Amino acid sequence: MSTGTERDTTRPGSGPLSSVDLGRLRERRSVKWTEYPPDVLPVFVAEMDTPLAEPITAALTAAIGRGDTGYAAAGRLPEAFAGFAGRRYDWHPDPTDIRLVPDVMTGIVEVLRLLTEPGDRVVVNTPAYPPFFYWLDRLGLELVNSPLALTDQGHRLDLDRLERDFASGARVYLLCSPQNPTGLVFDRDELEAVADLADRYGVRVVVDEIHAPLTYPGVRHVPFASLDRPAAARSITLVSASKAWNLAGLKAAMAVAGPAARADVAAIHPEISEAAGLFGVIASEAALTEGEPWLAELLVQLDANRRLLGELLAQHLPEIRYRLPRATYLAWLDCRDLGFGDDPAATFLERGRVALQPGPRFGPAGHGFARFNFATSAEHVTEAVHRMARAR
Amino acid sequence: MSTGTERDTTRPGSGPLSSVDLGRLRERRSVKWTEYPPDVLPVFVAEMDTPLAEPITAALTAAIGRGDTGYAAAGRLPEAFAGFAGRRYDWHPDPTDIRLVPDVMTGIVEVLRLLTEPGDRVVVNTPAYPPFFYWLDRLGLELVNSPLALTDQGHRLDLDRLERDFASGARVYLLCSPQNPTGLVFDRDELEAVADLADRYGVRVVVDEIHAPLTYPGVRHVPFASLDRPAAARSITLVSASKAWNLAGLKAAMAVAGPAARADVAAIHPEISEAAGLFGVIASEAALTEGEPWLAELLVQLDANRRLLGELLAQHLPEIRYRLPRATYLAWLDCRDLGFGDDPAATFLERGRVALQPGPRFGPAGHGFARFNFATSAEHVTEAVHRMARAR
Repeated sequence: MSTGTERDTTRPGSGPLSSVDLGRLRERRSVKWTEYPPDVLPVFVAEMDTPLAEPITAALTAAIGRGDTGYAAAGRLPEAFAGFAGRRYDWHPDPTDIRLVPDVMTGIVEVLRLLTEPGDRVVVNTPAYPPFFYWLDRLGLELVNSPLALTDQGHRLDLDRLERDFASGARVYLLCSPQNPTGLVFDRDELEAVADLADRYGVRVVVDEIHAPLTYPGVRHVPFASLDRPAAARSITLVSASKAWNLAGLKAAMAVAGPAARADVAAIHPEISEAAGLFGVIASEAALTEGEPWLAELLVQLDANRRLLGELLAQHLPEIRYRLPRATYLAWLDCRDLGFGDDPAATFLERGRVALQPGPRFGPAGHGFARFNFATSAEHVTEAVHRMARAR
Repeated sequence: MSTGTERDTTRPGSGPLSSVDLGRLRERRSVKWTEYPPDVLPVFVAEMDTPLAEPITAALTAAIGRGDTGYAAAGRLPEAFAGFAGRRYDWHPDPTDIRLVPDVMTGIVEVLRLLTEPGDRVVVNTPAYPPFFYWLDRLGLELVNSPLALTDQGHRLDLDRLERDFASGARVYLLCSPQNPTGLVFDRDELEAVADLADRYGVRVVVDEIHAPLTYPGVRHVPFASLDRPAAARSITLVSASKAWNLAGLKAAMAVAGPAARADVAAIHPEISEAAGLFGVIASEAALTEGEPWLAELLVQLDANRRLLGELLAQHLPEIRYRLPRATYLAWLDCRDLGFGDDPAATFLERGRVALQPGPRFGPAGHGFARFNFATSAEHVTEAVHRMARAR
């Protein structure tokens, strides 16, 4: 493994991604570190190679000391999120309109169950988070594949296409904002145009904002629900601290009702909230109330990593097209000019022993693509690109 | 609050239930300690007032140190359960036939989705764990209410009734063994008779054995899947460390296939396993591999508590009929002679400021009953009965 010392002078000397030790990481029990044999470097699933933020460590350690491992209750988590949303986005949801759910995907499933009937059409921009496909199918819903436009300037929302898809009789638009895997952050004008279309065609908007805390310096996330539009008032937003503070395994997220969607969110059954994880609640509350300084340090390092990845790819794999994501630690790599076929991640894995997330899982628009998670040390980013280059 | 010192001489001087401090408990964030205002003593939901077992504390503390909070993978948990089942029940499931699920209820839902079509009939003994009613309805399944027989000797399985219910065209029998809320432990002869009926009528048996580690001294739990019967081979059993080690909020359980049900359990989608909690996996593995000495101490104290509860009720509320449970820390109290109507827990709460679980939630057979959780200190058991007596 490269020591990567040539990069160290340009990197912050401390921060969440500075003390990443491969031996310690391999002791982890999570999917990222157990899915592949030890000769594979994993950069696939959306877990970060960070230690926990100190306030989270303190809160969880205290919970262990209390033996506080019984059934989850939302407690003060809705207030914690409302405070965070106010400070960070100038969005002021009412805590009483926020319902605990185990994770964003489960929250989406519950909301879709309430808003749709089997056979209804749900518009999804593709490439899309892979579990959307499984769960919509399981709910008996028809996924309307509405591809993002791909231009020389990268991906963008295709409002003409979206209007045609809304006009086709869609019941719900499942909007991922910021978008996974492309890292798109939609600006206010775009979102207002979406809201106007939703109002025109009577489409309910369900918004996955799990990546929202991870916008880069100079980029502002606009919560869809904060727009001054009827569609925003009728929207339901799913949020969580799990991506930004690496808490996916602790199981807590929230459904946030717009003022005209209160009854829908209130109809989420208490069984669903109790299926959340209590440590997820406790860790998320600590993150949202005391975790912003840590997040700021993290984003400085992620910002450096997203640029480092660009430099390394330009140097070692110039065939790959890569645009800096405006949010998230996920890079959506257009590998079509490499000649590795529909699933370049398979070739990187086989020949380079580096595991990226296969693009085809994100839908037809993912053929020839792969997703790279750079929430790790500069050394690991460098090593991963070297391994990818070896596959050529 | 009574200090209960008059009981201390008859109690073990140490053990999981000895160091229960009400002030500390009220700092907990779980449902038990946040559902009611502080003047109410909660003995309703199935959480224990214990500290965590030392091996669990150590495993979770290490996980926090590793920052190991990403997506859950089963890891060595299936092997840990298979080892525990072999030592404790002489049951030897193949770890490759064990699938991680977030909790027993979710596991039951997934298994029922695989074994049934909407409209199918599922036999459930009542009184029953309340979420069974919600989830069967949500799955579009018809719950066939098969009451346990209630005699002067307490509850027992009614095999004649069960046969009639199987003969009515049931697809699945959802067996809770040991039974919640009655604390019944079924003996081998009863379970073999059940298996023979299931084979005769082509009924698949899905078994909830979440309470199995909590049988009292002298009582032996017989895993349904360990029977030498075709119905046992075709059964699917849901297990978890969550009840015996108080881990409900950490979200891990397992679906265990009988040898003829492998394909069914293998069909549980990976999305379901990934929805489990990683800290649940880590804590459960520690419990099942290193937690038996703690469990033995716990059971000594629970055994004392179930008897103490009987003495206190005989003294203060002799109208209540109560039979010692053979497993679990849940007492199913027949309050019909108190004259408190269908829901005596409502009266205990209102007049005595003590929260029991309302009997009617367990189905029609629960009218006039209430469930009392005695997994707390002798002092709290005493205080709870005093409060109940005040309601009279």
